[in-house]
Amino acid sequence: MIVIKIGGGAEIDHDQVADDLAFLASEAQEFVVVHGGASTMNQVATQLGHPPEFLTSPSGYTSRRTDRRTLEIFEMVYCGQMNKGLVERLQVRGVNAVGLSGLDGRIWEGRRKTAIRVVKDGRQRVLRDDYTGKVERVNVALLRSLLDAGYVPVLCAPAVSYEGEAINVDGDRAAAQTAIALGAEALIILSDVPGLLAEFPDESSLIKHIPAAELHRFTEIAEDRMKKKVLGAAEALAGGVHRVVFADGRIVNPVRRAMAGEGTVIGD
Amino acid sequence: MIVIKIGGGAEIDHDQVADDLAFLASEAQEFVVVHGGASTMNQVATQLGHPPEFLTSPSGYTSRRTDRRTLEIFEMVYCGQMNKGLVERLQVRGVNAVGLSGLDGRIWEGRRKTAIRVVKDGRQRVLRDDYTGKVERVNVALLRSLLDAGYVPVLCAPAVSYEGEAINVDGDRAAAQTAIALGAEALIILSDVPGLLAEFPDESSLIKHIPAAELHRFTEIAEDRMKKKVLGAAEALAGGVHRVVFADGRIVNPVRRAMAGEGTVIGD
Repeated sequence: MIVIKIGGGAEIDHDQVADDLAFLASEAQEFVVVHGGASTMNQVATQLGHPPEFLTSPSGYTSRRTDRRTLEIFEMVYCGQMNKGLVERLQVRGVNAVGLSGLDGRIWEGRRKTAIRVVKDGRQRVLRDDYTGKVERVNVALLRSLLDAGYVPVLCAPAVSYEGEAINVDGDRAAAQTAIALGAEALIILSDVPGLLAEFPDESSLIKHIPAAELHRFTEIAEDRMKKKVLGAAEALAGGVHRVVFADGRIVNPVRRAMAGEGTVIGD
Repeated sequence: MIVIKIGGGAEIDHDQVADDLAFLASEAQEFVVVHGGASTMNQVATQLGHPPEFLTSPSGYTSRRTDRRTLEIFEMVYCGQMNKGLVERLQVRGVNAVGLSGLDGRIWEGRRKTAIRVVKDGRQRVLRDDYTGKVERVNVALLRSLLDAGYVPVLCAPAVSYEGEAINVDGDRAAAQTAIALGAEALIILSDVPGLLAEFPDESSLIKHIPAAELHRFTEIAEDRMKKKVLGAAEALAGGVHRVVFADGRIVNPVRRAMAGEGTVIGD
């Protein structure tokens, strides 16, 4: 079992990814796909007159401000455009994909944060009308029954709160929880960089291998968008996933190359 | 087993419908939900700079012109905003809904029309770049396994062509095929009128009952948006569904009232 997270960067080549996923399926490799959509989300939200806002936590992590209108546009882009675009790409290639959000069948369940501490202009504030949270439980029974019947689950945010509300969650960390819950041997995180870079954005500074025990040292090096990927990787490894690979989603055979060790391989 | 189609009219009260569906679920009534989204679709397509166009067939049926960009916006609205909005309303009410399009797991499969004959300004033309079709096969195994595990499937267009492409299909007729495939005893079609009206839009001219054998006589009476509902009803009855009810989706307890015979009841 492998979990493959496809980032939401504008440069990810979805046709190449879909070609590779179809190859994996033809080899009877079991896998679950998780995808993002941040770049398209930012465009569409702006087009619809509700441009994106980002929040910074006291510990330096960035996240999307998710009010009710943002959540609605988020569902349009992630669950509509991106999810069905990927499901169609897989169906055209003969892969029987089933696209689901974390809301559906309570696949990704977690606590909604009732208060979010953010830093703005050097001062701390608390937000109470944000719809975000963290995946704490994965509905393995539903995913397992789909996999056993030959379907490929294609998952995306939002998740569902214990009260049944839609909540925005980080895709990389949700992918990590999914990999842990399914007992996956590997989690592959494709984005529009070749992996973790010692000196972002210099792609020749790619870090090729990080032993699990040393990962915590790399949180500082990671630039903004990589910080949560490093956190997700740490969670996956702590939860029993053997290997996490940060790999390039812009190239030919991105999944196969990641599986062969191209990118940043984290684990022992 | 009942199939409930929720129309895409702006006046449908989704909270009332969700309340009623939660009641049905609490009574252990098995059901599948199918929904539309036309009114929101028209708004969003216009906001995104790709306003709706409609086609008229030589036999007088109207359908949405569905080029690739329309299909993308269609997926945003139907599979994203509408579908997840409904799934969330059900999850908040304790119903474990699973929202799926016809693409997912090839739930609604059919032939893409390679050429569509349309009438414009009194002249016939043929369109070849439209992504529309008709549901011919329903993946009963997937729906059955979800139902048996206690989930409520919430379905919407697009469907999938035999080649794996997304195709726009009529929601009422797709609901009819779903009802036939599942052996449903009833198909309830909620819209923003009280049922079939002898003199549209006079709501006091509601036709309360139509014997199955006489339904064909009512195609002429039906105004534009009702024509395909009448066609869907005829297909459902011919396929073994005992009863079709056209009912009002704007009122309190819309589903229970339809089940009790309020609206236009078609069947014997």
